[in-house]
Amino acid sequence: MTTWLKAQYTRRDPDPQSVIEAVPFERPVLAPGQALVAVLAAPINPSDVLTLTGEYGILPPLPAVGGNEGVGRVVELGPDTQGPAVGQTVLLPAGIGTWASHVLAPVAKLVPLPNGADPQQLAMLTVNPPTASLLLGNFVDLKPGDWVVQNAANSGVGSYLVQLARQRGLKTVNIVRRESAVAGVETLGADVVLVDGEDLAARVKAVTHGASIKLGVDSVGGSATLRLAACLGEGSIVVNYGALSGDACKVSPRELVFRDITLKGFWLARWFRITPAAQQHALLAELAGLIAAGKLKAPIQATYDLMQIKQAVAAAAAGERQGKIMIVPRHE
Amino acid sequence: MTTWLKAQYTRRDPDPQSVIEAVPFERPVLAPGQALVAVLAAPINPSDVLTLTGEYGILPPLPAVGGNEGVGRVVELGPDTQGPAVGQTVLLPAGIGTWASHVLAPVAKLVPLPNGADPQQLAMLTVNPPTASLLLGNFVDLKPGDWVVQNAANSGVGSYLVQLARQRGLKTVNIVRRESAVAGVETLGADVVLVDGEDLAARVKAVTHGASIKLGVDSVGGSATLRLAACLGEGSIVVNYGALSGDACKVSPRELVFRDITLKGFWLARWFRITPAAQQHALLAELAGLIAAGKLKAPIQATYDLMQIKQAVAAAAAGERQGKIMIVPRHE
Repeated sequence: MTTWLKAQYTRRDPDPQSVIEAVPFERPVLAPGQALVAVLAAPINPSDVLTLTGEYGILPPLPAVGGNEGVGRVVELGPDTQGPAVGQTVLLPAGIGTWASHVLAPVAKLVPLPNGADPQQLAMLTVNPPTASLLLGNFVDLKPGDWVVQNAANSGVGSYLVQLARQRGLKTVNIVRRESAVAGVETLGADVVLVDGEDLAARVKAVTHGASIKLGVDSVGGSATLRLAACLGEGSIVVNYGALSGDACKVSPRELVFRDITLKGFWLARWFRITPAAQQHALLAELAGLIAAGKLKAPIQATYDLMQIKQAVAAAAAGERQGKIMIVPRHE
Repeated sequence: MTTWLKAQYTRRDPDPQSVIEAVPFERPVLAPGQALVAVLAAPINPSDVLTLTGEYGILPPLPAVGGNEGVGRVVELGPDTQGPAVGQTVLLPAGIGTWASHVLAPVAKLVPLPNGADPQQLAMLTVNPPTASLLLGNFVDLKPGDWVVQNAANSGVGSYLVQLARQRGLKTVNIVRRESAVAGVETLGADVVLVDGEDLAARVKAVTHGASIKLGVDSVGGSATLRLAACLGEGSIVVNYGALSGDACKVSPRELVFRDITLKGFWLARWFRITPAAQQHALLAELAGLIAAGKLKAPIQATYDLMQIKQAVAAAAAGERQGKIMIVPRHE
């Protein structure tokens, strides 16, 4: 007998695991135009944790089901409904509350994905790969052979950025915060992996033979932003998309004024809001193809069933991880 | 008998007054194409102090004469030389070493200024007024009625910015670091003057009736940048041009990512380097006209003779001032 579960929260709290819990729900009755989808895999992203703590830029009304992306398999179509066939693997619509055994979704919003591909890798398609792709493509006009430098290179976005950069002929300097993270980033195709520290700019200059680096990608903040900016050439851009340190980004007026460094932010949710749908779909299709072909992947540290949602969120919120935390609902 | 003096330094030091001293020099012999100019007034700008300490973005070879701008009166023209008449008030070329009783300059680089205008106000033409004008004009497309917010509003640039903004129909929120600076900024035509503090954004919102402010001008750095950014509307720009706090600018990832705030720097020296001469001259002519007409002025705290150069530099380097420090060489 199937258990129908969703990971729900009714309040927000600085301790994210305290607010989320798996609750049972009744099998829903489908309306025309709807599909019932069994969730195969749904990741826990940093933005999901910030949504639970109340620190994210958009917060859904409460109560809410956690999870912003994932993939599933179509179980049933509503009456008189044309759509992906029962059994088809589909991408779930963003923001639908994917940490659940099943979701009800409008068929028009389901994007068919290759049935043969790894659903856990496909489940990470919507958030991190487009972020990495747009960080690389939307701020600086980069040409093959150019260097890019990023910190938190062992994060989900960081992992995709290494692989996409390599496919575009770009070279990457990857900064991590601990020695134990170096090997994992190297295996993804990184040109250089360095552990952060005071002399970072000098070490980057040495390994890149003094190349003028035009783009720095920051998801740490605090003094890490300062050290990243110091690695860049005159007139370059630092793009921040996260705050793993919990601190405000620091950039010295020397860098801003004398070296013309610009600090900007990137938020995928804004990009989705302001970008024509066709352009969004083209990007997702390109990235889905790469994932299905095994050319784009991110490490997964562990998978959790919905009954373990508190442990899963705690693991996702912890500082040191070896990969993404993935919710894989049990379907018996 | 005339004393020929120049304020010279032969090394750089964190204590700027320790390295500068007035030294006598011989009346020079003029070559064709040169003019001898008696300096009437030359200010000490923050950039001059940073040049003495070695913290500025360009440092002249040593030994050097201090001072980057000023005005003088033509005393003598070289043999067979056409140029501004003897007695004409002229703008001295940038970077010539203006803290001196007299300078030798190519006549082609001397810009005639109205003889009747206040030379001390004209002496500040080259550095602060164009900085204020370009901060207002080069980063955001502002329309009459729009608000601009700046900190260190009682600085030289800050004073000009208040007046130029008013002339362009813009409204200014001016932030100062102490209550004693409020009245001075108000007399320049400020719409609002506030003392910095944790609740700054809420107070700005109240006085501007929630206007979406598109431009923030920062010359303080540190947490002051953070508080300034919080006053701005979504998609706006903070431009930094100074570091009065001595600290790196801080901007929270929340502002960068969720509210699309950009942090940039402005350096007048770069603008002069990359901008066509005709455009530079047009801006300076416009600003000189406003100064000569008394429509653009900056407060002067005190004037010093060259023999008092150490005291003058110490006063310029001090944190709390009521206006610019001005070198006015004695001509007997």
